[in-house]
Amino acid sequence: MEKRNLYLHTTPVEEAKERYYRAVKECISIRTEEIPVDRSLGRVTAEAVYARLCSPLFNASAMDGIAVEAKKTRGASEEHPLVLRRGEDFQVVDTGDPIREPYDAVIMAEDLLEIDEDTVQIMAAVAPWNHIRPIGEDIVAGEMLLPGHHRIRPVDIGVLLGGGILQVRVHASPSVGIIPTGTEMIPPGQEPEDGQIIDSNSGMFAALVQQYGGEPDRFPIIHDDYEKIRETVKEAVSRDDLVIVNAGSSAGTEDYTVHVLRELGEVLIHGVAIKPGKPVILAIVDHKPVIGLPGYPVSAYIDFETFVKPVIELFTGSSLKARPLEQAVISKRLVSSLKHKEYVRVKVGEVNGRLVASPLARGAAAATSLVKADGVCIIDQNLEGYEAGEQVQVELWRPKDEIRHTIVSVGSHDLIMDFLADLLPDLFPGVHLSSTHVGSMAGLMALKRGEAHIAPTHLLDEETGVYNIAYLKRIFPDREMALIKGVSRIQGLMVKKGNPKGIRGVEDLPGCRYANRQRGAGTRVLLDHLLKQAGIRPEQIEGYELEAATHMAAAALVKDGGVDAAMGIYAAAKAMDLSFIEVGEEEYDFAIERKNLELPFIQDFIQALQSEQFKSRVKEAGGYGTENAGKIILI
Amino acid sequence: MEKRNLYLHTTPVEEAKERYYRAVKECISIRTEEIPVDRSLGRVTAEAVYARLCSPLFNASAMDGIAVEAKKTRGASEEHPLVLRRGEDFQVVDTGDPIREPYDAVIMAEDLLEIDEDTVQIMAAVAPWNHIRPIGEDIVAGEMLLPGHHRIRPVDIGVLLGGGILQVRVHASPSVGIIPTGTEMIPPGQEPEDGQIIDSNSGMFAALVQQYGGEPDRFPIIHDDYEKIRETVKEAVSRDDLVIVNAGSSAGTEDYTVHVLRELGEVLIHGVAIKPGKPVILAIVDHKPVIGLPGYPVSAYIDFETFVKPVIELFTGSSLKARPLEQAVISKRLVSSLKHKEYVRVKVGEVNGRLVASPLARGAAAATSLVKADGVCIIDQNLEGYEAGEQVQVELWRPKDEIRHTIVSVGSHDLIMDFLADLLPDLFPGVHLSSTHVGSMAGLMALKRGEAHIAPTHLLDEETGVYNIAYLKRIFPDREMALIKGVSRIQGLMVKKGNPKGIRGVEDLPGCRYANRQRGAGTRVLLDHLLKQAGIRPEQIEGYELEAATHMAAAALVKDGGVDAAMGIYAAAKAMDLSFIEVGEEEYDFAIERKNLELPFIQDFIQALQSEQFKSRVKEAGGYGTENAGKIILI
Repeated sequence: MEKRNLYLHTTPVEEAKERYYRAVKECISIRTEEIPVDRSLGRVTAEAVYARLCSPLFNASAMDGIAVEAKKTRGASEEHPLVLRRGEDFQVVDTGDPIREPYDAVIMAEDLLEIDEDTVQIMAAVAPWNHIRPIGEDIVAGEMLLPGHHRIRPVDIGVLLGGGILQVRVHASPSVGIIPTGTEMIPPGQEPEDGQIIDSNSGMFAALVQQYGGEPDRFPIIHDDYEKIRETVKEAVSRDDLVIVNAGSSAGTEDYTVHVLRELGEVLIHGVAIKPGKPVILAIVDHKPVIGLPGYPVSAYIDFETFVKPVIELFTGSSLKARPLEQAVISKRLVSSLKHKEYVRVKVGEVNGRLVASPLARGAAAATSLVKADGVCIIDQNLEGYEAGEQVQVELWRPKDEIRHTIVSVGSHDLIMDFLADLLPDLFPGVHLSSTHVGSMAGLMALKRGEAHIAPTHLLDEETGVYNIAYLKRIFPDREMALIKGVSRIQGLMVKKGNPKGIRGVEDLPGCRYANRQRGAGTRVLLDHLLKQAGIRPEQIEGYELEAATHMAAAALVKDGGVDAAMGIYAAAKAMDLSFIEVGEEEYDFAIERKNLELPFIQDFIQALQSEQFKSRVKEAGGYGTENAGKIILI
Repeated sequence: MEKRNLYLHTTPVEEAKERYYRAVKECISIRTEEIPVDRSLGRVTAEAVYARLCSPLFNASAMDGIAVEAKKTRGASEEHPLVLRRGEDFQVVDTGDPIREPYDAVIMAEDLLEIDEDTVQIMAAVAPWNHIRPIGEDIVAGEMLLPGHHRIRPVDIGVLLGGGILQVRVHASPSVGIIPTGTEMIPPGQEPEDGQIIDSNSGMFAALVQQYGGEPDRFPIIHDDYEKIRETVKEAVSRDDLVIVNAGSSAGTEDYTVHVLRELGEVLIHGVAIKPGKPVILAIVDHKPVIGLPGYPVSAYIDFETFVKPVIELFTGSSLKARPLEQAVISKRLVSSLKHKEYVRVKVGEVNGRLVASPLARGAAAATSLVKADGVCIIDQNLEGYEAGEQVQVELWRPKDEIRHTIVSVGSHDLIMDFLADLLPDLFPGVHLSSTHVGSMAGLMALKRGEAHIAPTHLLDEETGVYNIAYLKRIFPDREMALIKGVSRIQGLMVKKGNPKGIRGVEDLPGCRYANRQRGAGTRVLLDHLLKQAGIRPEQIEGYELEAATHMAAAALVKDGGVDAAMGIYAAAKAMDLSFIEVGEEEYDFAIERKNLELPFIQDFIQALQSEQFKSRVKEAGGYGTENAGKIILI
């Protein structure tokens, strides 16, 4: 078999960073440039900036009124008002007007008694410098306006211009070469054929580089060809300040990056004790930092933030603020290995007055977990994890204020949750819906533990034939609960278009490839119920152990994943253009603690369910009934 | 006299905002546009975005290893390893490779025993889907990737591209017209003549617009001419989404803005109960919001943040996060009027474990206070202020982490404080110096109240002739103190170049115009001492009541402000090209509590004082001695 790279050991994160940055700092040269102040927003000063002019530039009136000689106002009082004449005793001035000799004080318009066009009376004497802003009161020529290493803000631009500065020397934006590699990779926009993968990482890297103050320099995709990769890295190193190679950093049969970098320069680190993101390469080629990032988007992102961002900031001269850390309660047990520092993406919500962090999919390939995450819980290498309910530190990726206005939903999946997430901020600016799909039962359990505001659920009580209510009574015997009615929806078997296997119901599933849903999902409960009725054992169903997390994921497996059938809702089958064998209608509702019904954003949520926009969108999707949407049942 | 505008009353801030936004929302039309995903960083989605493709696009290997048929692995165990042959029983796969029928499981390379090039042994059976990422595991075609009103981040770009999306519909960036007015205004870059003012606000507005997601559309400066202002506003309203007129919003004789806006459209609000920023105009002309901002930079900035930013965000579709509020102790009494909501700029430092907020200059013209501020303390209209030592809420303008690494200095002013502020972050990345200039005595009082880490001081004990030590013993009788030695410096009288008035010493000050320093400043203490020695009373000195806050400000008054002499340091006279009459040498040191000497950033500060970079820079400025810089005296 082909030769694979092997990691002899992985380096702890902090050690890797320290060793690498020490080496990088020694070899790089920091470029600076002079740019117009008008275009310097967000740039970082390369040296202190000193004012060229004073502000104000002259002794200036601080008020609308008249300029006078202070000594001529002596003796004025309420009893003995003094008459002043224009031209002789005073001059009319507006705020900002220069005060020239012999005038040395200003009297406010409000303190004047106007006799005629050219004559006023004053009722009090004033001292020299009264209502005058002396030259240089705000800025003195020669004074430092900004120190070096200062990120320029709009107010700084105002002060620089006011101080007579038009050009400012700043750190040059580093040019960052981005080299995507992989024979199977295609650029976005090219229609993928079987086995091809869209290079979505390069676009993410370019945006990250831009966000952190660099200039992305993107290369076309390079096939897995040692020579070509070597030539491209040489080219990039010759023209960029920093180079990213993605991927080929791992230990696969065609992972050439580390070999190329060893030939061209020095590989300081290959393999770091970080998860996701282990197969990172930290190298220096020709006095330029070159970093090999892994291919999985989550690994690539975590490694970018951990290793690439600080190098960019060496060039830009200032670090952007770290994301704030907050205390939160972790909603489920997190086990981590002592072999690495782990970054677990979490959803964060404020429920019953405390922040709750719920772990998302931990796979390195789950790019959407980065989008869904509200933050990350970092498990240090010397920790084996956390128990459910423990206090953890979470690095927040969304503003805390936004998190406070977010409805936390944990439970069953339905497409309407997407509709609602989109509709809510439109109807009620600032209100967000965050959904985690764990199935009906797990959702009710999360609600019970105080980790969610609402739990979408569709659980049939076999005895009564009524959905949801019986489960709520059983699971929350001591709490005042309510059910916000959602939609009725049609469940059935999603099969390939035209139903080539001629499936009529669950009785035909043995002999077919099936895709199941996760344990505790209402749809799985329904399948088990139907199988029992039909006298079929789970072992007879091939694929019973394959767990899709959503209706759409199950539908996709039927569409293109070699699966013949999966249970799901009509809307998912329709969206995926599959045939559908109806097995029944069910009720998809939202369990909630009664006291939380009064929360403003829950009221908004109920209104959204009742809105015309929601109903028409659901109708378009197909297979839903909305007669009861938004009604409340107290339990 | 000319007609002035008068405010009959001012509207409370929240009422003004509410009334105006209701009107604006009704009249504006929100534009959207489709742009490439690659260029969508920071833009806000105008509608939900749905995936076009699944990710992965096919059932893919999650590991480097071999693809097998699960059923062919049955029976394999440690005792009975199973031999598999390439082509017949398996295919070599790397992570991400497609798994095609008949293969339905992957075995990791690490779990294989290689016999030869084409033969491996396995020690365990595997189930179908083992180490396979099913199609759509991360993204399912048709699934919502992003809701509307979502600000696009780098990770979103990755996921959009991965989901087959190349174009995204976002809110169009609003075009914001910026019209500077004022006959006395000149553009930056033009050398100002007497009475002219540099238009520094337009540059600040343009940067603010850019920061909040709009496109600035800058107009040239319009003179105070009713017709011209009217024509320009009409032009701006015809081509921009939102228009700012600056200034002419006040009640001066040539403030035409409000009259023009009344003629062209509707002025909803003129004058808001906000300080600084009262003379704001909120109008609508031809279905476009037009906002008149006052001319003073601080007023203009506060009004922009309060009134313009929310309008920009109506167009961009999403609000940027509010700055975080933190609890801090206010260092001095703040009196505010019930007539307005007041925004007091503050420096914020963490001293002895608590955040301390120290008010900066409150004048609306003090643009540098915006640059120096670490945040703002907002005093609600229904409050009369705060007592010193009270807990207040501060809106932080700098990251808290940065504030934690900032040395807080309160006390006497010297140019070396600027040098150190510039030098520190260069020598010690992340360490900052924040200086407030209140004079030596006030600095020691701040140190006593726990509001500063260090207090720069130069106070001569007349009895002993020794600087600073006696004062520390007297002011801190019960505390263990230390003095970090700074520089020796030459004090004297700064006079106009060539000394036209022939001043030889303080004895010549009567009959001259003098500029003094603030009460408690060491330099003022020195003057008083010298006057007493010379038998001169303060009343004999014209300008004794004019208080400049720094040596440089005093020098500027001598240079161009109609003042004949001021006491100050040699370096300031040199920087301003003034003549200098030496009166003596003094010691400028840093008082500190002994326990704080061990703080890491204080150690950095001491090292900076001892550094060659510091000494050479101080030497260049002139008039300093640095023999003792950085030495410690325990008291």
